[in-house]
Amino acid sequence: MENDGEKMEVKGDEENGQVVTPWEVSAKEGGKIDYDKLIDQFGCQRLDSTLIERVERLTGRPAHVFLRRGVFFAHRDLSEILDAYERGEKFYLYTGRGPSSEALHLGHLVPFMFTKYLQDAFKVPLVIQLTDDEKCMWKNLSVEESIRLARENAKDIIACGFDVSRTFIFTDFNFVGGKFYQNMIKIAKCVTLNKVFGIFGFTNEDHIGKVFFPTTEAAPAFSSSFPHLFAGQDNVRCLIPCAIDQDPYFRMARDVAPRIGYQKPALIESSFFPALQGEAGKMSGSDPNSAIYVTDTAKDIKNKVNRYAFSGGQDSIENHRKYGANLEVDIPVKYLGFFLEDDAELEHVKTEYGAGRMLTGEVKKRLIDVLSEMVERHQRARAAVTDEMVDAFMAARPLPHMFD
Amino acid sequence: MENDGEKMEVKGDEENGQVVTPWEVSAKEGGKIDYDKLIDQFGCQRLDSTLIERVERLTGRPAHVFLRRGVFFAHRDLSEILDAYERGEKFYLYTGRGPSSEALHLGHLVPFMFTKYLQDAFKVPLVIQLTDDEKCMWKNLSVEESIRLARENAKDIIACGFDVSRTFIFTDFNFVGGKFYQNMIKIAKCVTLNKVFGIFGFTNEDHIGKVFFPTTEAAPAFSSSFPHLFAGQDNVRCLIPCAIDQDPYFRMARDVAPRIGYQKPALIESSFFPALQGEAGKMSGSDPNSAIYVTDTAKDIKNKVNRYAFSGGQDSIENHRKYGANLEVDIPVKYLGFFLEDDAELEHVKTEYGAGRMLTGEVKKRLIDVLSEMVERHQRARAAVTDEMVDAFMAARPLPHMFD
Repeated sequence: MENDGEKMEVKGDEENGQVVTPWEVSAKEGGKIDYDKLIDQFGCQRLDSTLIERVERLTGRPAHVFLRRGVFFAHRDLSEILDAYERGEKFYLYTGRGPSSEALHLGHLVPFMFTKYLQDAFKVPLVIQLTDDEKCMWKNLSVEESIRLARENAKDIIACGFDVSRTFIFTDFNFVGGKFYQNMIKIAKCVTLNKVFGIFGFTNEDHIGKVFFPTTEAAPAFSSSFPHLFAGQDNVRCLIPCAIDQDPYFRMARDVAPRIGYQKPALIESSFFPALQGEAGKMSGSDPNSAIYVTDTAKDIKNKVNRYAFSGGQDSIENHRKYGANLEVDIPVKYLGFFLEDDAELEHVKTEYGAGRMLTGEVKKRLIDVLSEMVERHQRARAAVTDEMVDAFMAARPLPHMFD
Repeated sequence: MENDGEKMEVKGDEENGQVVTPWEVSAKEGGKIDYDKLIDQFGCQRLDSTLIERVERLTGRPAHVFLRRGVFFAHRDLSEILDAYERGEKFYLYTGRGPSSEALHLGHLVPFMFTKYLQDAFKVPLVIQLTDDEKCMWKNLSVEESIRLARENAKDIIACGFDVSRTFIFTDFNFVGGKFYQNMIKIAKCVTLNKVFGIFGFTNEDHIGKVFFPTTEAAPAFSSSFPHLFAGQDNVRCLIPCAIDQDPYFRMARDVAPRIGYQKPALIESSFFPALQGEAGKMSGSDPNSAIYVTDTAKDIKNKVNRYAFSGGQDSIENHRKYGANLEVDIPVKYLGFFLEDDAELEHVKTEYGAGRMLTGEVKKRLIDVLSEMVERHQRARAAVTDEMVDAFMAARPLPHMFD
């Protein structure tokens, strides 16, 4: 397989000790994910200020917080997407989620909040894949339970505010077939077992569903998989906002694309949303105290932030006033960096807290307010999502507003 | 994986030198396929006269030529199907074809002719799978060409006389999805790469589509894959008539079945239709002179039989009169065994030819008549198959006559 300058096979980085795959994210013991190293390992590019300014210029609106604060920090071919957009060519967005749990946590919302911004800013269609088949296989859920979770998760996604006239949400168990399945087979023909062993770390002990699954996540990157959306336009460019642990799927998709006559999908990739306990990995659905859930009450949030959010403050008020907080490891400040929109206020918190003039309790209190308001707003929006709305998003239909 | 008494993994039999897989059938050099050995290797059962008589009793009609002459010679759980049928329980038939060539040869017709007999005799529904996805992968055909060939082959299959009120024909590229895809994933979860390496002989050099494909051929063995046919009846028994080289797929399906809550499919398996040149393998689509095609003219047939059909007659008339023909290797006699319906006449030919009183030319002439008439009848039937009829067979619909 021709690699076209990209690094297709990347396993865990032994030297560095960090492992980033779609199923495992862990930093070197006690350390943080080294994102520079990851960019180098994966062969993607850093998202620099020139590109961000270009996005602002082209969309006529300020960059999203996640963009200007470096949450989305890496990309592949974003410049090419912007070039094409500037020439008047169209593209579409593709993101997704593996529906393995009932309730999403804040980390799960990050790509969707950002994708909504992109959809609004560029006025482009969006496909959202819910990989119920993946979770049925990896989490050993029944088909029925996976489908149910996908539908529940769809409600949380819809609650992020997507435009139904530009958005198609689908689950694999419902949608795989026809042109989509044909693309899965076209992709599969280009990828040997040796390749997926190299890219994803599968072994002979894995079942045959797992090794085939990457075709299912790659297929939505090609517009011909959605004839009801792109009738006849079989080669519309695709931009994928996702966390960087999904990069292996799209390295594979990009490698295969020219061999089956399609454009390579572009990517815009985020770092991981840290666990309350600290930045060594991403939030885990299996430890409820590692994350704030969109179903948490104000009391839950207050309790979790106060009890579990790792603090960079010093161990005594005296020391804190003297040395200030270590912002590099402080989770409340990190979280505010994601969700406190006011740049000036964030700067103020960082300065005062870093200098020891603001105490951990005060920062945590501000975070609790920000998160409570955000989660409450989400809960109100989700409660308003009816089954009819879910059906409307999931109907395989032409979209009334594709590129206008 | 629990094997439940069945031999799941069977590779080529080194000692015997014969290889029988879905993609390769070859006897030991110069020899014939040893079917007794195959039954032993695969772990299926011989179809004996008691079972054949039982089929005749239950259906109230004489056994098909292919049954009474041992063309279909092996089975798995046929007795259980007959027991169930006798108790008034229902079953359905499933057979199929990989559409790799424009025109079928006579060997391709064998399972369809036999399946039509079973459908008429038992009055049961039938699903026919055309694995265009398989041929797209194995023969490196384009998706479009595979779909076109599948539709062309469907016409030949329909020409065999299937009852549209009891038959659903589908191609994978059109039909995979929904409950069918859900079953593919359920099956996939139960089969490791190690297992498919053992069953099918795949290696790490194979692509990921190949190793997943067995799920596609196994899924139709479970009635829940066809909700439009079996609405709610998710566990109807299945009987699969096929050539014995397809056994690996259904060993796998039978192994998986109890683990996903389904009945094991039963099988009734045929030997291979020999090439004109002799019995060391089955007819090959890649050597046009090894086979009679359903598109051949009477002249083609006459020419091929006279020039290529391997004869067991002696090299001179004197020796022939003296020693008689070797019926064990004589292809014209083998072919008459498949297609000359009159038992008395076949017996007469064998006796006279074996004793040297009948000459090769005479036997070949009789075969040419039989084949020409059969092929001409097929061509007339196929010419009458319209696109509307193909659409009717392929529509995912309830069948008006399921079990009556």
